[in-house]
Amino acid sequence: MIPSGALKELSRIVGPDHFFLNYEDLLACASDGTKMKFMPDAVVYPADTEEISQILALANMEKFPAIPRGAGTGMSGGALPVNGGLVISMTRLDRILSIDQDNLIARVEPGVITARLQEEVERVGLFYPPDPASFETSTIGGNVAECAGGLRAVKYGVTRDYVLGLTAVLPTGEIINTGVETAKGVAGYDLTRLLVGSEGTLAIITGIILRLITKPAAKKSMVAFFPELSLAVQTVSSIIKQKVVPTTLEFLDRLSIDCVREEMGIEIPVDANAMLLIEVDGDEVLVDGDAEKVKDACLGTGAIRFDVASDKEEVEQLWAARREVSPSLLKLRPGKINEDVVVPRSRLADLVSFLGDLSMRHDLPIPAFGHAGDGNIHVNIMLDKENRDEVERAELAVRELFERVLEMGGTITGEHGVGITKAPYMDMEFTRATLDLMCRLKRAFDPNNILNPGKILTITDD
Amino acid sequence: MIPSGALKELSRIVGPDHFFLNYEDLLACASDGTKMKFMPDAVVYPADTEEISQILALANMEKFPAIPRGAGTGMSGGALPVNGGLVISMTRLDRILSIDQDNLIARVEPGVITARLQEEVERVGLFYPPDPASFETSTIGGNVAECAGGLRAVKYGVTRDYVLGLTAVLPTGEIINTGVETAKGVAGYDLTRLLVGSEGTLAIITGIILRLITKPAAKKSMVAFFPELSLAVQTVSSIIKQKVVPTTLEFLDRLSIDCVREEMGIEIPVDANAMLLIEVDGDEVLVDGDAEKVKDACLGTGAIRFDVASDKEEVEQLWAARREVSPSLLKLRPGKINEDVVVPRSRLADLVSFLGDLSMRHDLPIPAFGHAGDGNIHVNIMLDKENRDEVERAELAVRELFERVLEMGGTITGEHGVGITKAPYMDMEFTRATLDLMCRLKRAFDPNNILNPGKILTITDD
Repeated sequence: MIPSGALKELSRIVGPDHFFLNYEDLLACASDGTKMKFMPDAVVYPADTEEISQILALANMEKFPAIPRGAGTGMSGGALPVNGGLVISMTRLDRILSIDQDNLIARVEPGVITARLQEEVERVGLFYPPDPASFETSTIGGNVAECAGGLRAVKYGVTRDYVLGLTAVLPTGEIINTGVETAKGVAGYDLTRLLVGSEGTLAIITGIILRLITKPAAKKSMVAFFPELSLAVQTVSSIIKQKVVPTTLEFLDRLSIDCVREEMGIEIPVDANAMLLIEVDGDEVLVDGDAEKVKDACLGTGAIRFDVASDKEEVEQLWAARREVSPSLLKLRPGKINEDVVVPRSRLADLVSFLGDLSMRHDLPIPAFGHAGDGNIHVNIMLDKENRDEVERAELAVRELFERVLEMGGTITGEHGVGITKAPYMDMEFTRATLDLMCRLKRAFDPNNILNPGKILTITDD
Repeated sequence: MIPSGALKELSRIVGPDHFFLNYEDLLACASDGTKMKFMPDAVVYPADTEEISQILALANMEKFPAIPRGAGTGMSGGALPVNGGLVISMTRLDRILSIDQDNLIARVEPGVITARLQEEVERVGLFYPPDPASFETSTIGGNVAECAGGLRAVKYGVTRDYVLGLTAVLPTGEIINTGVETAKGVAGYDLTRLLVGSEGTLAIITGIILRLITKPAAKKSMVAFFPELSLAVQTVSSIIKQKVVPTTLEFLDRLSIDCVREEMGIEIPVDANAMLLIEVDGDEVLVDGDAEKVKDACLGTGAIRFDVASDKEEVEQLWAARREVSPSLLKLRPGKINEDVVVPRSRLADLVSFLGDLSMRHDLPIPAFGHAGDGNIHVNIMLDKENRDEVERAELAVRELFERVLEMGGTITGEHGVGITKAPYMDMEFTRATLDLMCRLKRAFDPNNILNPGKILTITDD
């Protein structure tokens, strides 16, 4: 609960037009990509770093939870006010401050929509590669807080690889600048990358300096269908062995294909049990050669069909269908638990075979799709969350999945983050010593545990 | 001072053959690339993580300083036992544990020499790009601790960009594993990148998982000479504007050229006042095209000579001469202060013009060379360190240099680290709030300040 004096003070800081207490406005900030719901006590829409500094100083003094929020597209509950408190929406900090073509950097505020930044930089021949599936609505600040990955990560890396420096407000209200505006910089501890992926638990990011690269001259999208899951997975290795690094190398199993069959806009062979969606980009000459190698690899491992997308519309339809997979799985069952595990690429075949087994044993549909190129598979355990028995089976399945993934040398989350959905499993991936260290780091930033509490770590108040 | 009981215990932990107290053996670990000298009280050469864990637990209990040491090539004093204590040499942990061609990763111990790793991975068609000038003697562990850069950073990034996961011993003796073996992973705070570049002050790294890439098929080295410094700098921007990203884009001013004139093995025009040394790599077809664009850029801005290195020997001689620049500057004066400042690429012209002015005003030679492609210039203030007046002038010059660099949006260190040489200037780059936060992070790792004390931050004992 936020004391009434503090509510008044919050209204004063952001102005009454940007301060909300009524049910509808609180509800708008109560949920996220997980569809879970936790009501905040108040919501503010601050205008700038200075206001956020005042808000956090107040929260720290009065010891109420403060939860930063971007577009609310997160998949692990990072933006949810699990203990109530104040949601701080970052949507008004939405300026692209500069796109510096000489130094290949952009200075942006966190509320900028990812797709908007991409369009603006591409307009001047530059490129910002990270592209989470939610890029048309997600914000750059949210991407940074979660270290978002996306489809192009296999070639271009993740959000972390493009963040050079940050402006951030500490939970005490202090404003810090981290990192550099330059290509290199090693002065002091790497606060920049400690904040990237810290899920809004260490500081509120209010300014971001991003590295840009040159826009690739050409690209080509291809689709291949396979009669067996294992053949598609084998093709992934075969492509990499040919020394082609595709921009994207996406995998869909039969259930995932079925859910977006109509959205695809292409004919799908009836005996297709797996699909690869592949894009290569770069210099015009190289793209043709790489596409040939990809084709050879696909046909070599037994693709029953291989197509190069014929025009821009077909390409866009294919990728739109791919991004539609996640929501459209709800056609199968009313609910899902969506895990974004990663295994070493060489263990992908073992993982998909294990998933078949897991589905059988727990009698739940488990469609899988995702970023095969970097071993990052979205495993969806479909269930009816009102059915207690199914929930129990699904929870068992999740634990078995994580056990298997960790045995293979993988991780429980490749890009969605821990938030609240994976917090109970952190001790499967990390030792007590490591988790204790993370708790000490959290306290070094946030002695009163007011900033986005209840996420990532189980912190007990002293 | 290390209590005598602790000395006995250290000898027991590592075995008497790996424990040293005599003058010559201590002297061997008393200096580094800075040529400064601080004598340790004892030196140990542990065999593995377990021994290091026992050593740090002891140091933490007895509260004596423990200083990890790689090859001692560091340029900022990171490995120096400034308050005495125990030097822990990592040279016996020198195994390449695996080079995994399916997953494009290497598992190595920290004592592996950088060049040896590069050779081993290139033998199987892979590539580990980071190449600090000291790569023939430096260790991977030292590279990770300092976040080493190098000549190829303009295209391939720095050490940080290739570290996926670490095994490390905390100052309390606890062993932790951080990061992943996979392409992606976002579970918990990014301890991996917090340790990278932390200069051995937070933990001792005992295992490293490195990302590898495919070895480029072809490369081409070129050299261009210019009558004016400003024309060389203008060429750097002009190359980048042509959308060529060279592997290396190195700059040498007149004084630097003079110091390695004979080592170059090529004829140098008498009126050359600046030189660019450029390499492009990648696919065979692209390399030729990129080399043409580089040539056009160089001739377009007024190069008085442009050559493509004719064979492998000529290439190697050119790059060997480049790496020789730093030590050979001592031909000019008996000592130097070597700063590795970075400015935005668009400010390089301003920086070199400022350096000319700085040299005049303080009446000291200030040769400059380095990684122009990422704005990272090695500025060498040459002096006789026995001459008190010169030392005072040099120190003034350093402070003025840093002020100017920071005004331009740069940083005081691009790759050498802070260590002890830049620690007094940290408050020029960071606010008190940021430095205080860094101190709290140090304490979260090292409550008794026993691990590599006196580096990066001025920590006062409570």
